[in-house]
Amino acid sequence: MSEVIPHWLTKQATLRPEKVAIETDDGTCITFIELQDMSMSYAKKLAHIGVRRGDRVGVLSMNHIDMVVTIHALSYLGAVVVLLNTRLTEKELSYQITHADIVLLLVCNVVKERFPENAFSVMTKSFQEINVLQEAPQVLQTELCLDDPFTIMYTSGTTGRPKGVVHTYGNHWWSAIGSALNLGIHDTDKWLTTLPIFHVGGLSVFLKSVIYGMPVYFIKKFSERNVIQAIMNEGVTIASVVTVMVQRVINMLDHVIFPETFRCMLLGGGPAPKSLLSQAAEKNIPIYQSYGLTETSSQIATIQPQDARRKIGSAGKALTPAQLKISEPDILGIGEIVVKGPMVTSGYFKDPESSRKAIQHGWLSTGDLGYVDTDGFLYVVDRRTDLIISGGENVYPTEIENIISEMDLVEEVGVVGKDHPTWGEVPIAVIVPKTRSLTSEQVLQYVADKLAPFKVPKEVYFASHLPRNAANKIVRQKLLSVISDFNYPNGNV
Amino acid sequence: MSEVIPHWLTKQATLRPEKVAIETDDGTCITFIELQDMSMSYAKKLAHIGVRRGDRVGVLSMNHIDMVVTIHALSYLGAVVVLLNTRLTEKELSYQITHADIVLLLVCNVVKERFPENAFSVMTKSFQEINVLQEAPQVLQTELCLDDPFTIMYTSGTTGRPKGVVHTYGNHWWSAIGSALNLGIHDTDKWLTTLPIFHVGGLSVFLKSVIYGMPVYFIKKFSERNVIQAIMNEGVTIASVVTVMVQRVINMLDHVIFPETFRCMLLGGGPAPKSLLSQAAEKNIPIYQSYGLTETSSQIATIQPQDARRKIGSAGKALTPAQLKISEPDILGIGEIVVKGPMVTSGYFKDPESSRKAIQHGWLSTGDLGYVDTDGFLYVVDRRTDLIISGGENVYPTEIENIISEMDLVEEVGVVGKDHPTWGEVPIAVIVPKTRSLTSEQVLQYVADKLAPFKVPKEVYFASHLPRNAANKIVRQKLLSVISDFNYPNGNV
Repeated sequence: MSEVIPHWLTKQATLRPEKVAIETDDGTCITFIELQDMSMSYAKKLAHIGVRRGDRVGVLSMNHIDMVVTIHALSYLGAVVVLLNTRLTEKELSYQITHADIVLLLVCNVVKERFPENAFSVMTKSFQEINVLQEAPQVLQTELCLDDPFTIMYTSGTTGRPKGVVHTYGNHWWSAIGSALNLGIHDTDKWLTTLPIFHVGGLSVFLKSVIYGMPVYFIKKFSERNVIQAIMNEGVTIASVVTVMVQRVINMLDHVIFPETFRCMLLGGGPAPKSLLSQAAEKNIPIYQSYGLTETSSQIATIQPQDARRKIGSAGKALTPAQLKISEPDILGIGEIVVKGPMVTSGYFKDPESSRKAIQHGWLSTGDLGYVDTDGFLYVVDRRTDLIISGGENVYPTEIENIISEMDLVEEVGVVGKDHPTWGEVPIAVIVPKTRSLTSEQVLQYVADKLAPFKVPKEVYFASHLPRNAANKIVRQKLLSVISDFNYPNGNV
Repeated sequence: MSEVIPHWLTKQATLRPEKVAIETDDGTCITFIELQDMSMSYAKKLAHIGVRRGDRVGVLSMNHIDMVVTIHALSYLGAVVVLLNTRLTEKELSYQITHADIVLLLVCNVVKERFPENAFSVMTKSFQEINVLQEAPQVLQTELCLDDPFTIMYTSGTTGRPKGVVHTYGNHWWSAIGSALNLGIHDTDKWLTTLPIFHVGGLSVFLKSVIYGMPVYFIKKFSERNVIQAIMNEGVTIASVVTVMVQRVINMLDHVIFPETFRCMLLGGGPAPKSLLSQAAEKNIPIYQSYGLTETSSQIATIQPQDARRKIGSAGKALTPAQLKISEPDILGIGEIVVKGPMVTSGYFKDPESSRKAIQHGWLSTGDLGYVDTDGFLYVVDRRTDLIISGGENVYPTEIENIISEMDLVEEVGVVGKDHPTWGEVPIAVIVPKTRSLTSEQVLQYVADKLAPFKVPKEVYFASHLPRNAANKIVRQKLLSVISDFNYPNGNV
């Protein structure tokens, strides 16, 4: 049966009208009743220029309160929000805008200035241009049907065409509930996010806010200093972060101890090196590794508080309403992670073939490789597409990267497979060094001391940067293309 | 779309195997993994004597761990649990057993001794008789489909035939989530219940336990001393209670101050007198009045922590996934309370007519009268069937009862309408006095000082007890029948 619930923002505006919904580092505070009123007014202005139930409306914006108001406004109209990544090129955006049949594109000022007038073949308005419009006498949704689509996000796709992941209201609702049943809900919670709202991990915090009745602390521009300041002085109790932020925060945290009220640093966006997690544990930072993807509406597995320290590196177990298993495990137990649960998308927009391929009987094939230890804890190993098969052995780039990244002189590293006449593939490493004094011999020696011979890279390159996608993830498949960029002679073994 | 989730007890046994699920006042502690193993074993024994998916199995038991295990066991089989009230007579039980097409009746030892062998026309077994059976090689449910029926409870019915309220897994799930979003979820929570498990308010605590992963503290026999002891010394943070318990606890609480970790005394089972709530507030007992009925799978409205003190007597606002409104309000704003939400039953067992009458477009007519104040807070006034219409004025028995119950010499009181040739109906009061020195003149004077003349009872009777139903609620419609029971001469005005 399709469940219907009262509109979540209206509900909070009724239950906790004067509670802060959004707080920013420039001192802005918006209560739930204010957020509701702003969003309802904005919905009526959008109705004025013709946005209707079921329409797909693109949102291309840096993190901004106007963006949050717009998303809620579109929910009041029953329109579908297509969240676009500001790091994409004009061409990439045009593909998504066309594919999603967007009727209107809403942009922030920064984005508006970046692209030429009429860059996209769709009516484009800035948030401000809508704000000056009159309100139409539009009837707004008082309820949300959990089966109705709410957002579409194109997966950044390290390979292939981007696919539009459709999230229903229910997907987001269940994701928020699954997280609550893991981390608990405290009346004093305040959730910090620095993630882009166009990613599901960023958006999900603002939806948890209206589902739980909880303030979001919202840093407009990420800096480790701002994050530390928010945790130390602004009453933040939970923070959503990705690995690079944790690293930067730890580097700055010398003699600072976070207050006990700061109870969770929720780490997403891919596996983190164990060395980083150990450093965090030493500094008493309550890091909870999680696992999720756009298709699962953010985390679907997260380590439990009581297990976080003894299972370092694990993403825990599937959240209460979710299930997880390893498909066709190899002799080491490593196989593809498949997941099921009411937070999992039911498919890709206008792409029944990809949907059928990815989701069978409710189980989503994630494309990620991992294993579950004897206590049932998930360890994510790698993207399946990045797996290197060398002489019949499975070689996981992340394992090698984790070892190399322990070296003091290594800034970052990517490992990828390269064709080889004898072994089929062999691993090669591309390293951004901290100083030129690092040699490939040092690297090889370091790895050879710790890993089996077939896992030792057959070539080591040095580069000034690694290729990343719009989601800021390293694209291993493009590593080979930056080799020419190596910038000192001992690069090649 | 019908949502499917992993079996909730299996899930907790995976996530928190060693955490305590049930703790009793005799020192028994059962962890989630133990509770799972006991329930799975019990399910296979039930399968051994032929219980199958979809079968209705009656459970007639005092509160007991075996009863909880049985309920979970039946969920592993996909059977439907018909929870029967131990306070009912043989004839009343026989009606429900027949109506529900029960294939097997499971009873505790106390119940077994109470009824003659073969009292009911259905195979009857004690929990122990099942426990000695062998396990059948039965495949157990690993998932719960939220649309599947899980329990049936017959409403005690102060009037008319009892109706079998069907609760799906989803109804119970959403009820637990609604409560969590109101009260929060703390890792240290331990929920005390003294309510009968055959009522939804009692059962719901055990289901919250397996949905949240939270221990239940379980007092086998209610006494105010045990409740206070559990709160003072056993780490109880939340307690579910009904009015009479609060009264008794307060009477005993002289110089005791509850620990700060005790965060909620959740009060259900009908409106409580304001005087009691004020007393509780003076003693710093964090009472949260709630409103709910069997049809709403326990609370559907509860006062929020931050409002509990300034809105004494209110049951708050509808929980996050629920909606509530007043149908056809009178000039004072009082009308029938109608509610909607995914915790609301979709109907009565084998009674489509009653279902259609009670539930229209998802809105359930509760039969309760109430109003919502200008800030949106619900006040429950009375059962609609108890409303007295006197000379065209609405007279609410509870209002008069609350006034009379403030009198020192009054133990308890019920007010009911009696036919009257001039006014149509008039209110009359039946009082259980603390001493014989109380006179009807004193009562009438006390009421006349506080209420309008048409609300002053036209007759006052004294009785040794008031008629109650199996749910221990006063049955106002039977008050007139106990008048003959009045036991001292100045009873009649």
